[in-house]
Amino acid sequence: MATAQPPYFGAAYYPEDWPLDQIDTDIDLMKQAGMNCMRIGEFAWSRMEPEEGRYDFGWLHTVTDKLGAAGIAIILGTPTCTPPSWLYQRYPECIAVRDDGVRLEHGARRHACPNSPAYRDHCRRIVTAMATEFGQDSNVVGWQIDNELYVVHGLEDHRGCFCDECVGKFRSLLQERFGTIEALNAAWGTDLWSQTYQSFEHIPPPRSGTWHHPSLLTAWSLFQADSYVDFADDQADILHRMASQPVGTDMMPTLGLDYHKMHRKLDVVQYNHYNLPENLWQCGFWMDMVGSLKDAPWWNIETSTCWNGSTAANGYREPGFCRVNSWLAYALGGEANLYWLWRAHWSGQELMHGAVVSAQGRPLHIFGEVQEISRGLSAAGEWLNNTRPARSGLAMHVSTVAWWTFAHQAMVKGFGYIDAMMHRVYKPIMQAQLRPQVIHPAQPLDGYRLICSPFLPVLDEQGLRDHLREWIEAGGTWIVGPLSDIRDEHAAKFRHAPFGVLEDWAGVHCRYEIPGDPRDFGLCWADGQTSTGSIWYDGFEPRDCDVLATYTENPLEGLAAVVSRKLGKGRIVMLGTMPVAADWQRLLLDQARSVDIAPVAEASTNLLVVPRVDKAQAGAPDAQTRGLIVVELENRSGTIGLPQSATDLLTGRKHSGSIEVAPYGVMVLAH
Amino acid sequence: MATAQPPYFGAAYYPEDWPLDQIDTDIDLMKQAGMNCMRIGEFAWSRMEPEEGRYDFGWLHTVTDKLGAAGIAIILGTPTCTPPSWLYQRYPECIAVRDDGVRLEHGARRHACPNSPAYRDHCRRIVTAMATEFGQDSNVVGWQIDNELYVVHGLEDHRGCFCDECVGKFRSLLQERFGTIEALNAAWGTDLWSQTYQSFEHIPPPRSGTWHHPSLLTAWSLFQADSYVDFADDQADILHRMASQPVGTDMMPTLGLDYHKMHRKLDVVQYNHYNLPENLWQCGFWMDMVGSLKDAPWWNIETSTCWNGSTAANGYREPGFCRVNSWLAYALGGEANLYWLWRAHWSGQELMHGAVVSAQGRPLHIFGEVQEISRGLSAAGEWLNNTRPARSGLAMHVSTVAWWTFAHQAMVKGFGYIDAMMHRVYKPIMQAQLRPQVIHPAQPLDGYRLICSPFLPVLDEQGLRDHLREWIEAGGTWIVGPLSDIRDEHAAKFRHAPFGVLEDWAGVHCRYEIPGDPRDFGLCWADGQTSTGSIWYDGFEPRDCDVLATYTENPLEGLAAVVSRKLGKGRIVMLGTMPVAADWQRLLLDQARSVDIAPVAEASTNLLVVPRVDKAQAGAPDAQTRGLIVVELENRSGTIGLPQSATDLLTGRKHSGSIEVAPYGVMVLAH
Amino acid sequence: MATAQPPYFGAAYYPEDWPLDQIDTDIDLMKQAGMNCMRIGEFAWSRMEPEEGRYDFGWLHTVTDKLGAAGIAIILGTPTCTPPSWLYQRYPECIAVRDDGVRLEHGARRHACPNSPAYRDHCRRIVTAMATEFGQDSNVVGWQIDNELYVVHGLEDHRGCFCDECVGKFRSLLQERFGTIEALNAAWGTDLWSQTYQSFEHIPPPRSGTWHHPSLLTAWSLFQADSYVDFADDQADILHRMASQPVGTDMMPTLGLDYHKMHRKLDVVQYNHYNLPENLWQCGFWMDMVGSLKDAPWWNIETSTCWNGSTAANGYREPGFCRVNSWLAYALGGEANLYWLWRAHWSGQELMHGAVVSAQGRPLHIFGEVQEISRGLSAAGEWLNNTRPARSGLAMHVSTVAWWTFAHQAMVKGFGYIDAMMHRVYKPIMQAQLRPQVIHPAQPLDGYRLICSPFLPVLDEQGLRDHLREWIEAGGTWIVGPLSDIRDEHAAKFRHAPFGVLEDWAGVHCRYEIPGDPRDFGLCWADGQTSTGSIWYDGFEPRDCDVLATYTENPLEGLAAVVSRKLGKGRIVMLGTMPVAADWQRLLLDQARSVDIAPVAEASTNLLVVPRVDKAQAGAPDAQTRGLIVVELENRSGTIGLPQSATDLLTGRKHSGSIEVAPYGVMVLAH
Repeated sequence: MATAQPPYFGAAYYPEDWPLDQIDTDIDLMKQAGMNCMRIGEFAWSRMEPEEGRYDFGWLHTVTDKLGAAGIAIILGTPTCTPPSWLYQRYPECIAVRDDGVRLEHGARRHACPNSPAYRDHCRRIVTAMATEFGQDSNVVGWQIDNELYVVHGLEDHRGCFCDECVGKFRSLLQERFGTIEALNAAWGTDLWSQTYQSFEHIPPPRSGTWHHPSLLTAWSLFQADSYVDFADDQADILHRMASQPVGTDMMPTLGLDYHKMHRKLDVVQYNHYNLPENLWQCGFWMDMVGSLKDAPWWNIETSTCWNGSTAANGYREPGFCRVNSWLAYALGGEANLYWLWRAHWSGQELMHGAVVSAQGRPLHIFGEVQEISRGLSAAGEWLNNTRPARSGLAMHVSTVAWWTFAHQAMVKGFGYIDAMMHRVYKPIMQAQLRPQVIHPAQPLDGYRLICSPFLPVLDEQGLRDHLREWIEAGGTWIVGPLSDIRDEHAAKFRHAPFGVLEDWAGVHCRYEIPGDPRDFGLCWADGQTSTGSIWYDGFEPRDCDVLATYTENPLEGLAAVVSRKLGKGRIVMLGTMPVAADWQRLLLDQARSVDIAPVAEASTNLLVVPRVDKAQAGAPDAQTRGLIVVELENRSGTIGLPQSATDLLTGRKHSGSIEVAPYGVMVLAH
Repeated sequence: MATAQPPYFGAAYYPEDWPLDQIDTDIDLMKQAGMNCMRIGEFAWSRMEPEEGRYDFGWLHTVTDKLGAAGIAIILGTPTCTPPSWLYQRYPECIAVRDDGVRLEHGARRHACPNSPAYRDHCRRIVTAMATEFGQDSNVVGWQIDNELYVVHGLEDHRGCFCDECVGKFRSLLQERFGTIEALNAAWGTDLWSQTYQSFEHIPPPRSGTWHHPSLLTAWSLFQADSYVDFADDQADILHRMASQPVGTDMMPTLGLDYHKMHRKLDVVQYNHYNLPENLWQCGFWMDMVGSLKDAPWWNIETSTCWNGSTAANGYREPGFCRVNSWLAYALGGEANLYWLWRAHWSGQELMHGAVVSAQGRPLHIFGEVQEISRGLSAAGEWLNNTRPARSGLAMHVSTVAWWTFAHQAMVKGFGYIDAMMHRVYKPIMQAQLRPQVIHPAQPLDGYRLICSPFLPVLDEQGLRDHLREWIEAGGTWIVGPLSDIRDEHAAKFRHAPFGVLEDWAGVHCRYEIPGDPRDFGLCWADGQTSTGSIWYDGFEPRDCDVLATYTENPLEGLAAVVSRKLGKGRIVMLGTMPVAADWQRLLLDQARSVDIAPVAEASTNLLVVPRVDKAQAGAPDAQTRGLIVVELENRSGTIGLPQSATDLLTGRKHSGSIEVAPYGVMVLAH
Repeated sequence: MATAQPPYFGAAYYPEDWPLDQIDTDIDLMKQAGMNCMRIGEFAWSRMEPEEGRYDFGWLHTVTDKLGAAGIAIILGTPTCTPPSWLYQRYPECIAVRDDGVRLEHGARRHACPNSPAYRDHCRRIVTAMATEFGQDSNVVGWQIDNELYVVHGLEDHRGCFCDECVGKFRSLLQERFGTIEALNAAWGTDLWSQTYQSFEHIPPPRSGTWHHPSLLTAWSLFQADSYVDFADDQADILHRMASQPVGTDMMPTLGLDYHKMHRKLDVVQYNHYNLPENLWQCGFWMDMVGSLKDAPWWNIETSTCWNGSTAANGYREPGFCRVNSWLAYALGGEANLYWLWRAHWSGQELMHGAVVSAQGRPLHIFGEVQEISRGLSAAGEWLNNTRPARSGLAMHVSTVAWWTFAHQAMVKGFGYIDAMMHRVYKPIMQAQLRPQVIHPAQPLDGYRLICSPFLPVLDEQGLRDHLREWIEAGGTWIVGPLSDIRDEHAAKFRHAPFGVLEDWAGVHCRYEIPGDPRDFGLCWADGQTSTGSIWYDGFEPRDCDVLATYTENPLEGLAAVVSRKLGKGRIVMLGTMPVAADWQRLLLDQARSVDIAPVAEASTNLLVVPRVDKAQAGAPDAQTRGLIVVELENRSGTIGLPQSATDLLTGRKHSGSIEVAPYGVMVLAH
């Protein structure tokens, strides 16, 4: 059979845990499920290399050959997440060390140190061996490096790996960055509390339980995170050299690791998620980020069919959830959706996780839903392949530097960066039916007409400040603040003003900065609506700007809360406080309108509506809409007004005007 | 005076902490309190052996002689729970090691390693010395080995002792069990995550903070628990050889240690409990277990008079509590009830615990209640000695293997084995006035007509599966599930079916298995009553069985929830979900009726009613009832319908028909 | 300019963290703020001694000279709280060790061991150098030793420093105290649990996680606390020898350290507090303690202007809070109020804390309030300097021994010593407008007519028992209990009676002692009012006393709860339980009246009213009132009836009769 083509639909499969002759039964069931893609290999190091230097790929060839023969494409994982016991016994230095000096032990996964030279050597060796075996295997359509890099089991309450290699590398990095210890002392302000270092060798890895300097903590955390990028680079280099298939790594929803940087050598973006019904909408946030990393379809490589669970199952999902959770990936630009996992484990740390078939090979209750999704993909697949999500010209910034800066300086009690970004910033945008891209500071700005950057404390990242200024002056509208541009690249305050450049750019003088704990302050919008802000309160004296909202309560009364100023051909809108959802939506819609961005549809807030344009025109601002995908997120019906009549490819039915979308309904509405 | 006879009534007494000449005052008070038994010695190692090899038993002889002369029987504890400071200084290897490698220190109790050869040697030495001194002392009526074995202070957040001895012994045990490392790898499924071991020497003691394999964790926990059995065996051997009195060890309410196994060399079952008013009913659960371990009266060896407390007193009990709490033991087959403690400590870790007299020798406010109990025992003692709790033919299984299997695999979020066993299984049985025995899988099944085994994941324990089959086919009714027979002896799933044998035995095919988180599913009973299940949901296709309840909600709709099938002369009733209390009671009463088991009385749910039969007929199914003991558990009045007229031995009053029981009332109703 | 005179008003200033030439800008702003005092130097060791033995005080002279020239007085801190990195690198033994054996690391503050000889040497060296430089500097008006001694960062979950020096010193101290190990064993009751020691060398430092003996724990905690007194003595000796200015150390609100003992060599009492609006009244408790330590004005050396915060700002205070929070210190006998901090940090662990001006030198929103306070101090300063808070003759005891005794023996579940002292004892006193002094057991009793000592478990402290007896017999009224006189000096119970002497003194026999968990018991006062007690219940048989309250509930019914007995010319009132607030106030007012102590005013409970007397007469019982300071604590208006007409020095307005005090209002009412 010919190798399967996208859209890929399948699951993670662990043949190493089962008798090899069971594969035929599994393939039969996979075919019944309508699947065309399996992800294998990611934890099977000890089966591939039972003893140091003795490789056994025979069983894996049997698997790939049989799957291939059945028309099932293979994504092959490198097993570096789970070094074998023999490796741990002989080279314990491969394994990460907690901040209390205790080395992790064999038995979990992702417990090796990304900076360990010995571990890196062994990883290169096994990846080279795999690439030799499968680099030209036409049944293999892609590589996955390691598994959930950065989710280190055993370091949850610690601060990454504290082994000598990590500590040495960190100090070298600082030496490289600062040149002299005096420069570091000056940048971090170590005169405070007599923290001044005499040598880079004296800089402590900042273990938990010590009240450490936030500049040290931020530098350390970013170093630890970047170590995984560096680690992945190694494997990407080998695979690029020896294998013909695209390479990626499966990412978990976190901004602790810079996924833009992570993809500097990767070809295909891979993403894992396990959202529960109550936060299914958050997939939008992450997929709008994932989808912006590359100008190409991405792979949703892990998600749950029906419940999560390691040794305790939890979070049963109602009928229809599997459908909508699976279609979300395709709607938002994915060309693969793979479940975790195909057949439930019969032992081990995750034996209670939901699957497609049970450990005994019995189809789970979602099997029918899986088959329905597969039929839908058959019906809509060509259209999906030929279209891409439209790009609206709207973006919002997220940042790994912001993540760590706020992690070590919350600025205001109770502030959590990712929660604020999702609940305060993204969700109102999504529910206003604006379709943003979620981008990192290092990503190019061209193509956008409106960018939001709340809670972006450091503008010094990779030239962003200059790029933004150029982009604004060329016509962009930038909504910025609160708590943006308030720290330099060393996580310290600016000393000339509360902001690096924002007072200047926005034409204001910041009179007072007040934390939003324990209470919020009132404000009044230019149209007379009264409300409050949230989280943080900068009170501005307008110097050369329009005032969009004014505080009504002391000590802020009369000061501006939101201002706007023309800058070249563009505009800056500066927030002194985070508006509540309704105000934020009104402000955004106003600014969007002024740059010709409109909501993609009139639709209920529980609907995610994704306009799709011709693949060839993807990214172009005026690309012609080829239809819409509509996904209901809250298991209740919703309404959408169709701009033009369209045919639901899943049912063949034609729709026009205002239509109802069923609870957990999915419609692929082609024009 | 002659040595006291049962029923024993007394307290724990620590003469080592007081001037020796105070004993006469104490004995006077004990006699005033009406006590006839004191438990001494358990922590007094440093007084018995002030320096290595130098023994001093003179003071203890004074104590035993004086108590004996006063007609007070003595239970003598071996002091191995508290090794002296000199032992710790000279042989630190005796003391347990936490999973982070830190050795515990002197100052607490039960902090020695049960597997330490040095500690074991010293324990044998002191026990031998004690046996030499007191093994033939007629004032001593029993031995207590150590104290609350298994409740290790200092290892609460750890996983037992991680010293080299323990680790080595664990590995040897595995080697013995599996023969080859390949067999272990196969049984545990270590191909998963490349956990495969090359040698038994590589198996890590599974310290906390690592995401370990549940099969490893379960094996380790059972090994740690069994180490205490092994430890107690040592002392039992010596005492059996050298002493004439019966030997036991005082147990705390836990199933983490297998108390059936613990009694393989012990003669008398000893039990400690400290229930609060709100969970007083739980005594029933534990005492129904304790009472089933041996075919003989057991000793309630520790309980509180009026409040608990180490360095902070807490849980003051209302008047009457002491009465009912004390009588519970006698009602349910105990022949001793001893308080902790006689005289409150004047210093130390437990100086705020309730007692009989204060540190200053002043009677506490419960002293009158204590005297009343003593008078009651005098009045009813002979009848108590000549009767035993009737055995109803009903049993429920509890299991240490289940305890650890669920501890390391909760199966469903929020599931707690012991809570489920007590609240979901036992309490409805108790409140339906059925009188179960609570038995371990290794206990014989004969004599029972109805056995309940919910939440018994492993049937492979000590041949239980075969014994059950035989017992059913001979006429027994077995109620089993949910979550029973779902794991093999290595804590792994079966691969041929979700159950080892239950599908076959019950004539069903399990279509779907669904966790009860976050919600429950509806079902309808054969009689038309609608309800929900709880915790877990197996949906059965009936193949060859009667359906007792059917699911009413998708995805389970129409599948069977509870089925019943004849098997030989007996019957299996299989639960796919745990019924709510009312349904569980109805089901049980139905099944009980069909095997001629009836509630022991029509009585309020707050009454514990214990029919007593002639001692000589104890255990016989048709033993004649000699009367009832009724105990009120909730400090409110209750009603019981007496099957025949009876005399309350405590008051001498005659009762018949429907009578009221006072709040915290106790009646010993002899026919 | 002449050096500033009290009242001092200012802030903490960290010139070491800023360019030296910024000082002129800062001084300009300080003058605008109306400040006349800056506190500097406390963390600047690495700037004063950049390398071992190389001192650099030039910059600090520039600072002190410039401040002095501007008429701003200087309080100079010794920087021993923050040993430099080079010291940590070369002498790691200076740094404290956690109870798990891990040495703290560089990067925080107050992490050095007070008992380390090396650290002590280096501290003496830097302090000597500072004294040489600034000991005769007329701009310097006082010294502050170290910073918040005892608040050790990094030992929060541990029990102080466990380094070899500490352990050795502790053992020596015990040897000195007890002479022989047998004496220690006897005093602590170590026969219990075979804890008996053979040598002082075997006494373990009681690390956390072990269930240790409360006598050991109490001795250890007191030793650790006293180590800081010993540490401060060193510096006081040097400064007294070499410097002309008064010496103090800034204290945090805790009784874990004995502040009375701490001041045995100190001249001026210095105090830090950061109360939130909801517990602003607690300042009264602490300041009434602080003010009683010396017969002289004290310095409020740290408080917040508008919010707290390390890396997250929190606790924004409403307008007026700064005013009232600042005036509290002056009202209650302080002659300085300094904010933390002058200019917000631009980096580091505390960069989000509220300040007077921002890191950019912008006045915060409270700047106007600061100026208003300064104007008020100018207007009222002379009067403040010439008056002192009146002493009412009422005192209540607090004790560091009590703190640690209860910390290691809560006696009753949920009991917290400091909460009880503040909420149950002090607050009702304060709200009854009685003005107590809060004194330590070692402070002299003369001058008081009424002393309250609830929750004072140990009377054996520094001869207190005898002093009290003398003082009572000479005419004093002593209100004592509950939970007083219940432990000997080794934290053990008395063996002859529940109390050391109280039964004898109060003419009672304690029949029952019952913990107040989980419920309280009813009582009836002699005047017929019914109520309950709280926390603890001693039931007394009156032998030779008047009964003020009797229990009404079993098992206490009919026993006395509160009794009173004449003793010489005085009286003892003994509490068996802690009365609820209203009863406590009534009892107190009754007893106060009988010794001619009256409330200072008829005033709302939200007003703190401080009568002031002539400085020359301060302390004399009949000192003439020169006026009142009134401070509103709850941001709502209040009423006070003025005993005579008075002029508010802050407004110049004259008041008489019943007047209203504005929310967060302050009035300095001079007669």
